[in-house]
Amino acid sequence: MKSTDVWPAYQIVTPEIIARLTEISGTENVSLKNADLELHANDQGIQTAHCAEALVWATDTVQVSRVLALANQERIPVTAWGAGTSLEGNPIPLHGGILLSFERMTRILAVQADDFQVTVQPGLGYKDLNHHLARHGLFFAPDPGANATIGGMLGNNAAGIRTVKYGATRDNVLKLELVLADGRVIQTGSRSVKQSSGYDLTHLMIGSEGTLGLVTAATLKLAPVPVHISAAIASFESVTAAIEAVVGVRGSGLDPAALEYLDEITSDLISKNDGLNLPAKPTLLMEFHSTHAGSMQEILEIVRQICIESGAVQFFSTINQSERLKLWHARHHTMETIVRNHPGHKVTNSDVAVPISAYPELIKFIETCRSRYDVMAYAFGHAGDGNIHVLYVTGDDSAYQTAMQMNAEVVNQAIELDGTATGEHGIGMGKTQFMRKEHGAGLDVMFSLKRSLDPNWILNPGKIFPSNIIPA
Amino acid sequence: MKSTDVWPAYQIVTPEIIARLTEISGTENVSLKNADLELHANDQGIQTAHCAEALVWATDTVQVSRVLALANQERIPVTAWGAGTSLEGNPIPLHGGILLSFERMTRILAVQADDFQVTVQPGLGYKDLNHHLARHGLFFAPDPGANATIGGMLGNNAAGIRTVKYGATRDNVLKLELVLADGRVIQTGSRSVKQSSGYDLTHLMIGSEGTLGLVTAATLKLAPVPVHISAAIASFESVTAAIEAVVGVRGSGLDPAALEYLDEITSDLISKNDGLNLPAKPTLLMEFHSTHAGSMQEILEIVRQICIESGAVQFFSTINQSERLKLWHARHHTMETIVRNHPGHKVTNSDVAVPISAYPELIKFIETCRSRYDVMAYAFGHAGDGNIHVLYVTGDDSAYQTAMQMNAEVVNQAIELDGTATGEHGIGMGKTQFMRKEHGAGLDVMFSLKRSLDPNWILNPGKIFPSNIIPA
Repeated sequence: MKSTDVWPAYQIVTPEIIARLTEISGTENVSLKNADLELHANDQGIQTAHCAEALVWATDTVQVSRVLALANQERIPVTAWGAGTSLEGNPIPLHGGILLSFERMTRILAVQADDFQVTVQPGLGYKDLNHHLARHGLFFAPDPGANATIGGMLGNNAAGIRTVKYGATRDNVLKLELVLADGRVIQTGSRSVKQSSGYDLTHLMIGSEGTLGLVTAATLKLAPVPVHISAAIASFESVTAAIEAVVGVRGSGLDPAALEYLDEITSDLISKNDGLNLPAKPTLLMEFHSTHAGSMQEILEIVRQICIESGAVQFFSTINQSERLKLWHARHHTMETIVRNHPGHKVTNSDVAVPISAYPELIKFIETCRSRYDVMAYAFGHAGDGNIHVLYVTGDDSAYQTAMQMNAEVVNQAIELDGTATGEHGIGMGKTQFMRKEHGAGLDVMFSLKRSLDPNWILNPGKIFPSNIIPA
Repeated sequence: MKSTDVWPAYQIVTPEIIARLTEISGTENVSLKNADLELHANDQGIQTAHCAEALVWATDTVQVSRVLALANQERIPVTAWGAGTSLEGNPIPLHGGILLSFERMTRILAVQADDFQVTVQPGLGYKDLNHHLARHGLFFAPDPGANATIGGMLGNNAAGIRTVKYGATRDNVLKLELVLADGRVIQTGSRSVKQSSGYDLTHLMIGSEGTLGLVTAATLKLAPVPVHISAAIASFESVTAAIEAVVGVRGSGLDPAALEYLDEITSDLISKNDGLNLPAKPTLLMEFHSTHAGSMQEILEIVRQICIESGAVQFFSTINQSERLKLWHARHHTMETIVRNHPGHKVTNSDVAVPISAYPELIKFIETCRSRYDVMAYAFGHAGDGNIHVLYVTGDDSAYQTAMQMNAEVVNQAIELDGTATGEHGIGMGKTQFMRKEHGAGLDVMFSLKRSLDPNWILNPGKIFPSNIIPA
């Protein structure tokens, strides 16, 4: 028994267990090397690293099923791993046990182009998927940035810049094959776009961070690659004016493909860094997709009018590809730009989301906290979805602790504003302390579901649920 | 004890229970009258009617909570009722007990126009909601036809004609307040569009047909009312050609707001009935929404080209409102037209859905069955989503039994084609026998979740799950 003072009590990975894992997976897919374990001990966020006791590379569904059946029988924790691009410690094997990596399950199982669907294994990166799909004129729209795997995106309900038009991961999945904690393999959903047959297990699994079951195949919805793309950028005197423009653009039915907000200091930084000639003001960066060139100028003129009416002090739009890519390059590399401009500092990326109407209030709250705590923090994000990222820049541990105090205030404020502790990064280890406040008695329901599907609590323990919910 | 030979054993609604219900809800909200019970004994489908023992009209969340807590304690079934517009017996109180009607919870709690959201009580009809929202330039897009309530739409994950662009009910809900079987009240989701905080209880509840909890308030996503609308209609020599055009139109990125299929006999019937001058051929009826008039002619020209290239033998499009409404009137009233043209016959509306690429094969299968069984059946539906309705017209019980044999074959074939037994009507009583075939071991997972959230099985018993899954 590894620990008797916590519930549930897990077993350690003994040499006998290793022998059985090797028998299931083959020598080449099991590793006990420190180098391998350390490579899979933390993600791209700032949560404390922790090594698994054994690393197993999954290669097919049957093997995943056998590994889980064994782990469940022996009470060994199993944490799934995609690419480690998450930010809240979601795939850190906090209780040791087995790290089950999907890095070797990267196949495209079927491109169902006429159905606008693709079926893939979970270890495939979404950028690699889209590279392959380009020849079909199709793409998988959710775009979390780093080359996250499909499995990781499913685990966290990843989203991104284009979610305002195309939806999050949750909105683009039709069918899953998954393995339950006891090794049972089930299919959820179907390849039909419309489904109203029984409980929606697909959506229950999406965002459950590998705590209810592990996906071994997924059928995803695809969108046609847009033919004509334009960009627009507008600067405002106030956040309120900028958000009035956001509401105007969305209400116009123009269906923007991106609608991003940058605060003063962020727009100033990327303006200088990327040579964009932007004033240091609240800024909106937009993208529009269209099937026909003729309508694009018309769209951009409507957008210009909306921005000017909302009080824009500067407006620029373009259908020129290199100009557009220059703007978006600046946005896509904002995090790297911030890191590069603060050498020797730690950059912590937080994620909250609120109803759009509450965005100005949230931004003002962030600005007030920034002054009060005297913390360096950039704020930018997906305004069209009410999603904001605060990037805290800290030079030492004391500054970091102060920043995290401020972040807790920001998260609580987002929840108060009828929003959420996380729009797209998930709960992982980093946000479990906000679950009760956000979900109230709903957290007990989540707990009931978890116990029902994983009674031995072997799947990714220490995530989503605050430790104090676990019965003594 | 009402019955000892089935599980679970329910109690009858005794005079003492009636007294307690009256104490909770007030005399005016409890009825034992036969006339009231019979009005709530069946829906618009063909499942056998069954009366509840008592009818209670819900008026607020606290009352719903108290009624459920009482029913759970006393082991009395509770079946929720919206407008009774469902088609598979979904709200029929099959085991008696309490029929909890939401007909008196019809308030709009908040219009959050800047957030493109509205929060409503579940008894509100979606047409009534949209009538109210028109002044805000917004609408709730799912359109199941009859004036279904929001609660009923949530229960069945209702969809409709515009789902191809705007999604089903599932895709347009952000937050729910609901009462669990034991009377606990929880909130699921948030008013943030992006959410990745814990398990997706919202989507677990949507489509669960009142078997996991009862919604008492819902925050819905709204879309801007389209400014410019056009319609197009095209006739083809074959289903395959028509579906090639469906794939072409969807792949073009034109984002149709409706993409409907009518088989030969349906298009012939509505052509004669509504004076449309359509040939008796596979037909597509389309609608497009745009924010700017200029692009509409361009869209329609692209659509025309796609249809002609796919082999259309006739094509007509219009931006004229009265011409458009005439076309859509014919489609919206297809069911009534069929009923009116077959006086004295029973019309049974079935619903299956498949991936679009399997649509031609499914239609051909339906045509083959129609000949083999010698059954009168119209086939039409939401081709853009792979969803087809088969309307069986039968003159006597023997013909009806034959038609239902054919329907079972059609449903099984849809499942074989990687589709589903129901795209939008739900399982209710009518399709429980297909659940094991469609979901395999996934059905056992649904059963586990049901037992976890409703251990006494009081919520809408007899629905979704086939009776043989219930332990003896």
